[in-house]
Amino acid sequence: MGVDPGLTRCGLGAVEGRPGAPLTLVAVGVVRTGADEELGARLVGIEAGIEQWLDDVRPDAVAVERVFSQHNVRTVMGTAQAAGIAVLCAARRGLPVALHTPSEVKAAITGSGTADKKQIGAMVTRLLRLSEMPKPADAADALALAICHVWRGGAQHRLAAALAKATRKDTRP
Amino acid sequence: MGVDPGLTRCGLGAVEGRPGAPLTLVAVGVVRTGADEELGARLVGIEAGIEQWLDDVRPDAVAVERVFSQHNVRTVMGTAQAAGIAVLCAARRGLPVALHTPSEVKAAITGSGTADKKQIGAMVTRLLRLSEMPKPADAADALALAICHVWRGGAQHRLAAALAKATRKDTRP
Repeated sequence: MGVDPGLTRCGLGAVEGRPGAPLTLVAVGVVRTGADEELGARLVGIEAGIEQWLDDVRPDAVAVERVFSQHNVRTVMGTAQAAGIAVLCAARRGLPVALHTPSEVKAAITGSGTADKKQIGAMVTRLLRLSEMPKPADAADALALAICHVWRGGAQHRLAAALAKATRKDTRP
Repeated sequence: MGVDPGLTRCGLGAVEGRPGAPLTLVAVGVVRTGADEELGARLVGIEAGIEQWLDDVRPDAVAVERVFSQHNVRTVMGTAQAAGIAVLCAARRGLPVALHTPSEVKAAITGSGTADKKQIGAMVTRLLRLSEMPKPADAADALALAICHVWRGGAQHRLAAALAKATRKDTRP
């Protein structure tokens, strides 16, 4: 499950699959909170929305976009706080949490770390064999995070498996 | 109850009082998490520590330092996330949450918005009639936030009371 964090729109997307096999869309959507609400009420709303998703989707892992302070200064604190709540909700359930940078996600999905939102949306649509691009962009970005995580996680799993095999060879000739 | 947010050290301090009367120390301390722990585990630790404090102290209101992205870039995201969790914990209980900037706190406690940590610590020690300065600085800062909130809240309460009185005069001569 991928989370594109934000206070106004927090994108959520879940996919099923493994590296080298077709991916399937499980769910996609956004949790919204009102810009006129107090920060506390917004954070409670984000938490409730993510908890509901974790209950419904029951993911194996959660990937959250890593937030940098170079982003839009006006909104970056809210984005960081929404990301923190996503990490908190996943960690409370003992789920593995990964943070991927926007350029890692772009590179994984499109081959270019500088791809634009439209290109991300187009590749997500193609990879999940959807009839149209998921909207808003936050929802498509959350799916891109989830796909990136499946693929990167896969590479890490293969590496871990290869290392384990090599270690077994060393110790049990 | 004041919260000086941070991942490594989250300062917590509670005071009892009202504007124009002596203030009393209720509790002071820090919640710590290890820099070698995963972000998820750290955020879960911060949440558990703040929840324990809210259970023990049962504050009327929670004041959290407002985090700006101009701060130390390396740690600001973790600080923002710890602040977000403090706001979340308070809002989940229906407690009023206030955000005060560092310069608002400094100005309230010392009369100068550019006072240094030592000056803040000295004034907190004097205002609460303590025998020594609370340590670490994060704990003293949390008390400063709590004191600032009592005084600022007091001004707001008096204004609200005066407005209510004026309204009563208008409608019930």
